[in-house]
Amino acid sequence: MREEKHIIGYGESGNSKEVFYSINPSGKENSAVYFHQATAEEVNQAVQQASSSFALYRKIPAARKAAFLNAIAAELENCGDALITTCMQETALPRARLEGERARTTGQLRMFATLVAEGSWVDARIETALPDRKPLPKPDMRYMNIPLGPVAVFGASNFPLAFSVAGGDTASALAAGCTVVVKAHPAHPATSALAGKAIQRAAQSTGMPDGVFSLLFDSGTQTGAQLVTHPLIKAVAFTGSYRGGKALYDMAVRRPEPIPVFAEMGSTNPVFVLPEAAQQKGATIAEAYSASVAMGVGQFCTSPGMLFYPQQAADFNGQLSNVFSNITGGVMLAAYMYHAYQAGVEERLALPAVATLASGKAPDTTDTHVVTPVLMTTHSDELITQPLLREEIFGPASIAVPVTTREAMLALAHSLPGQLTATVHGTAEELPAWQELLDILEQKAGRVVINGFPTGVEPVSAMVHGGPFPATTNSSSTSVGTAAIYRFVRPVCYQNMPDALLPAELQESNPMGIYRMVNGGRAFTQL
Amino acid sequence: MREEKHIIGYGESGNSKEVFYSINPSGKENSAVYFHQATAEEVNQAVQQASSSFALYRKIPAARKAAFLNAIAAELENCGDALITTCMQETALPRARLEGERARTTGQLRMFATLVAEGSWVDARIETALPDRKPLPKPDMRYMNIPLGPVAVFGASNFPLAFSVAGGDTASALAAGCTVVVKAHPAHPATSALAGKAIQRAAQSTGMPDGVFSLLFDSGTQTGAQLVTHPLIKAVAFTGSYRGGKALYDMAVRRPEPIPVFAEMGSTNPVFVLPEAAQQKGATIAEAYSASVAMGVGQFCTSPGMLFYPQQAADFNGQLSNVFSNITGGVMLAAYMYHAYQAGVEERLALPAVATLASGKAPDTTDTHVVTPVLMTTHSDELITQPLLREEIFGPASIAVPVTTREAMLALAHSLPGQLTATVHGTAEELPAWQELLDILEQKAGRVVINGFPTGVEPVSAMVHGGPFPATTNSSSTSVGTAAIYRFVRPVCYQNMPDALLPAELQESNPMGIYRMVNGGRAFTQL
Repeated sequence: MREEKHIIGYGESGNSKEVFYSINPSGKENSAVYFHQATAEEVNQAVQQASSSFALYRKIPAARKAAFLNAIAAELENCGDALITTCMQETALPRARLEGERARTTGQLRMFATLVAEGSWVDARIETALPDRKPLPKPDMRYMNIPLGPVAVFGASNFPLAFSVAGGDTASALAAGCTVVVKAHPAHPATSALAGKAIQRAAQSTGMPDGVFSLLFDSGTQTGAQLVTHPLIKAVAFTGSYRGGKALYDMAVRRPEPIPVFAEMGSTNPVFVLPEAAQQKGATIAEAYSASVAMGVGQFCTSPGMLFYPQQAADFNGQLSNVFSNITGGVMLAAYMYHAYQAGVEERLALPAVATLASGKAPDTTDTHVVTPVLMTTHSDELITQPLLREEIFGPASIAVPVTTREAMLALAHSLPGQLTATVHGTAEELPAWQELLDILEQKAGRVVINGFPTGVEPVSAMVHGGPFPATTNSSSTSVGTAAIYRFVRPVCYQNMPDALLPAELQESNPMGIYRMVNGGRAFTQL
Repeated sequence: MREEKHIIGYGESGNSKEVFYSINPSGKENSAVYFHQATAEEVNQAVQQASSSFALYRKIPAARKAAFLNAIAAELENCGDALITTCMQETALPRARLEGERARTTGQLRMFATLVAEGSWVDARIETALPDRKPLPKPDMRYMNIPLGPVAVFGASNFPLAFSVAGGDTASALAAGCTVVVKAHPAHPATSALAGKAIQRAAQSTGMPDGVFSLLFDSGTQTGAQLVTHPLIKAVAFTGSYRGGKALYDMAVRRPEPIPVFAEMGSTNPVFVLPEAAQQKGATIAEAYSASVAMGVGQFCTSPGMLFYPQQAADFNGQLSNVFSNITGGVMLAAYMYHAYQAGVEERLALPAVATLASGKAPDTTDTHVVTPVLMTTHSDELITQPLLREEIFGPASIAVPVTTREAMLALAHSLPGQLTATVHGTAEELPAWQELLDILEQKAGRVVINGFPTGVEPVSAMVHGGPFPATTNSSSTSVGTAAIYRFVRPVCYQNMPDALLPAELQESNPMGIYRMVNGGRAFTQL
């Protein structure tokens, strides 16, 4: 049995005698590592170092921050197969998925490195002085985004690499110039330790200040609560359940000094099938929908959990039922998720108006915590009146709802809470007539998908992985894509600041060669 | 005695028998108008109309929204002298100030009209499809900002035109595509009614939907609370006291669906004088500081309330005391502000370590609610240990603190809560040696002013009128300048949306000719 300690800046710590273990949810061999619960002193030490190093880190030139991010990516690659096999043992996710996820994680880090090194993201705005303006001279004003301070990041269970220790939240916070304290997700602590050490090595090799990054372990909620309520923490990033995210939000807004919480809390990601589409390509949609539900044992934030289709499309129901019966379940990421899935399905099926339309296959395995995909069905009125049916079940469960009229389809859309995504399948001919549906959905969701499926979130500049509450606690943000950096900054205006004392981004000679808005003109020009 | 009613969309209402009156704080003749307290039904009706008209208003082309904003500006000018004289009676502010403020208000409206008509503000981002990408095709993704929904705006007392009914919050919310319900400030209801009718006429003449704007009166807090907790209100904008803003914030974050509150709650706007500056231009700084404190009877959010200067600059103290003794007070905006000012000064002067350094002159008048400027002084240690001394007094009161060492100056800066502004006076030679002070202050304030004074907030693209809590409840925003529009929007991503169904801003042909980010490149290009 091997011990792993908290990473606090360049050091490590493991003072508590209370420990917990890395567990393989499939019941097979695990990675045989134990972890100390973080003590209050350790949490405080990590935050204090994050705060003192912030004063240094924020002033480090953009090119060096970019080198740090690139070094993290390289160190994750240097972890070699150990990172993949450790993660497979802790999550029961397959090798190909995790290799792909590592590539995505390093890709994200390098994307933010490029963004930061280039520099235009700071949204520099310059108003030049008019010393002769009457009645009063106009001063020189220069605006740009600066980092908020130390950020608490919560590792997510379902992307043990891409949304965890070295994932998008950490990458975008470090890119913004914030220091980071990560609370590791207890479902993959050994993976977290490897990623954390990769970041620690990258910080040291690129000369970042001691404390720019720390990683704390805790199988409970104490460390998270202490981080969110610590006066020196200035923002929180979280991906996970509604319950978890909302609890952190409630703590943060009740602080003497409230701070922003960017909690991405998942959603049911409704899919609407329009009449002609159901008729012309019902079989294809049914197949792709079922595959999307089954993907990764349904453990994605964007996994589709609701399907609305025209009752008139008589075949569609049968097609869907057929193909869904052939999809296969798998091992959930953790025991508690397995139990939550089973309970969530049972609770819904206990409602009089809910029935099973199809069940997928149990995989042929002796593994533990294996779930079977479930496709439920109900009446559209029931979905509107029964809030439980609009809540997410984390895992490969979904509900298919036949809809009789256009008005009922629109009413269903209206009834939805905020979503990460909303999807419409329609032919080119019928879509324009459903503009009203699209209008409703763009007000409900962060991303509107046409003739596709919500799983597969591209980490690009145009991505929105966010949406109205309860999908997130801050609808003006995204946690994927380059715009994720804006969660961790605020604008500052320098008035009549001597040129030499301005940040490089705002100096008259524009030494970084970035795009800047000058005198309110529409052009972003390089002066 | 004339009656004024609530404006609800194109209609009016005044159902309550409970009324209140327009009051002249100077005790002179008032405008002899009474107002109904809004009933719960009236508030709900205004919000319902704001919500139903939002579905229409948000889809109106940008050029027509711009026409609406320009029409509001024209209608405010059409109000002629009646708007100015009414406002003078309600606020005791002088004619020149209010004429200037109207020009600023119409200027802001036209600035947002220009911004919206041009269109690049939506931050359009396009990632074009790669249908042949392996293992999976890359979809077409298009990102832009869309409006949040109906916004509740609270008129501010201290800018009865520029931060009130037709002020920057309303202008930026309407520009963003949101509908607006304004709660009028009870200290200038007749002015509010005139501005509200100007907006109503502009809405009708430019064909905006009935309900795009409503205006409610209430001398208490009930209407505000109902607005902030109404499920159909999606954001709140407020300028005023910490107590008022924090109360609205607390209500909004405790809603079943929390919403953002952009409360600008003022600050003490510290001014630091460095040794050489004190020596070389102490008299000039003392004079300008005193004038800045006296301006508008100290009733600005950016009025300087704290002055830190080197104790060694022996003359400075005397110079300051002399010039401050010659500045004149005036009538406060409302009786309750007069009493709060007197109580605030008394409470501080009752502290053993606080003394009066100078008192300004009482104006030669029989007016009521007249205050006299007060300059207090204390030890720098006292300012750090006594939180009361770091709180704002609304009005022409200020505290001057002699500081013995550089370390004490930095410690004072460190001790400050979040500020709208922080100002440093230093010679070109000494400023570089005080980089550490500037670094602290940019983390404390939304705007850092060098060798100037914080009063005078330019409504331009590079302005930040915001700052860390408790200056605001959302440090990533500004309530002045073009960036104020971003408070009321969120991004949405359209994936594989047919071109004809996309908003104009994202269509392939770029019909609005706006700047767009394409495929993550650094350039904002017109495709």
